Amino acid sequence: MNIILASTSTLFGGEYLVYLKEELIKLYEGIDEIVFIPFARPSGISYDDYTAKAQSFFDIINIKVKGLQEFDNKIEALNNAKGYFTGGGNTFLLVKTLHEEGLMNVLKKNVEEGKPYLGCSAGSNIGGQNMKTTNDMPIVYPPSFDCMGLVPFNINPHYLDPNPDLKHNGETRETRIKEFLTQNELKVVGLREGNWIRRIGDKITVEGKELTRIFEKNKEPYEIEAGSEL
Amino acid sequence: MNIILASTSTLFGGEYLVYLKEELIKLYEGIDEIVFIPFARPSGISYDDYTAKAQSFFDIINIKVKGLQEFDNKIEALNNAKGYFTGGGNTFLLVKTLHEEGLMNVLKKNVEEGKPYLGCSAGSNIGGQNMKTTNDMPIVYPPSFDCMGLVPFNINPHYLDPNPDLKHNGETRETRIKEFLTQNELKVVGLREGNWIRRIGDKITVEGKELTRIFEKNKEPYEIEAGSEL
Repeated sequence: MNIILASTSTLFGGEYLVYLKEELIKLYEGIDEIVFIPFARPSGISYDDYTAKAQSFFDIINIKVKGLQEFDNKIEALNNAKGYFTGGGNTFLLVKTLHEEGLMNVLKKNVEEGKPYLGCSAGSNIGGQNMKTTNDMPIVYPPSFDCMGLVPFNINPHYLDPNPDLKHNGETRETRIKEFLTQNELKVVGLREGNWIRRIGDKITVEGKELTRIFEKNKEPYEIEAGSEL
Repeated sequence: MNIILASTSTLFGGEYLVYLKEELIKLYEGIDEIVFIPFARPSGISYDDYTAKAQSFFDIINIKVKGLQEFDNKIEALNNAKGYFTGGGNTFLLVKTLHEEGLMNVLKKNVEEGKPYLGCSAGSNIGGQNMKTTNDMPIVYPPSFDCMGLVPFNINPHYLDPNPDLKHNGETRETRIKEFLTQNELKVVGLREGNWIRRIGDKITVEGKELTRIFEKNKEPYEIEAGSEL
């Protein structure tokens, strides 16, 4: 496999995907066109507008972006594609649409066969085993929480450390992930913004400037450095 | 109906439920025993420990608390109860358990017949039409997102205003609720901590020290004052 699962598409103060530019040139080496999966629709924008946003970055590295919504036969479009990018937004919307249109397993099969895949945020969640560690609001009811399982763990994108100054009694991210571990036996990778997971063949590493926080059942959470294998 | 749906159980620096004491004396007037629904299990604590925590407050106002887990026949226990309290925690766990044990509609029927109900956080979410505006992590997959619909809208507990200083690209609460409104036509009440919804008969008001933020489809969000009818 040849995949990047990124915590976020955009660093604070930065432009869309630009911090990943060198990585994406390598990911998509030899490819001049990819299919974009816009179903997560951040803030409810249209599929076409979201695809145009993706194209605005991919123009810089000379890759043409085709939105999956443009195809009458989406299964065929995924099977014919040379590579993929799934943008962020709402994971419930994304997973519901992929399952209802029978696309989750088609995408999985193609990526497992070696076609390059980039996911950001919600698009990274679907690379995990299931979507049970998303931060998103359950605005729609998907027929299943199962995802592609491109990596043998779950991802928590936009991982955020507790803020000791906050006078608020909502749960911290760490509390939420620990609640997940009371119900599930699965490693969770807390990906801080600016970090990403890189899989090349069977080798899976975490990359980026920040440490990455790992949560496992019956263990204290711990931190690993960029380059560490997962 | 006679219900309180509170944003939180505990104010910053305060003790469990104490800020609601005078309201709860009125809510449960004439009642000396209630059934506690502990299924949301915050941080994975046991049902018995959670029930003991509820009892620690209700001792102050001379009400005995029986945990629903103590009964072999939970449907009968709900039907025989004089009043209810559902504690906070994870809404997905709470809703899954209530649906799987066939309790959601039993509780609804009893509350609609006039028995007093208190919900905090996840326990307030289930008073809304559905759980699609919870903040919680989807750590388990419920058979449905439908809730009791004790009020004709949805609740977002622990409503949190955007923090302009945060260098983080996760969605704000307002963005999430606006995404909900792209997919659903239903009013959402953003309940800041310290606020609660009070229903007496057919009259529904919002109460507490803070303004309350209301979200409706195709409208700018707006604020209402304590005492306003919903």
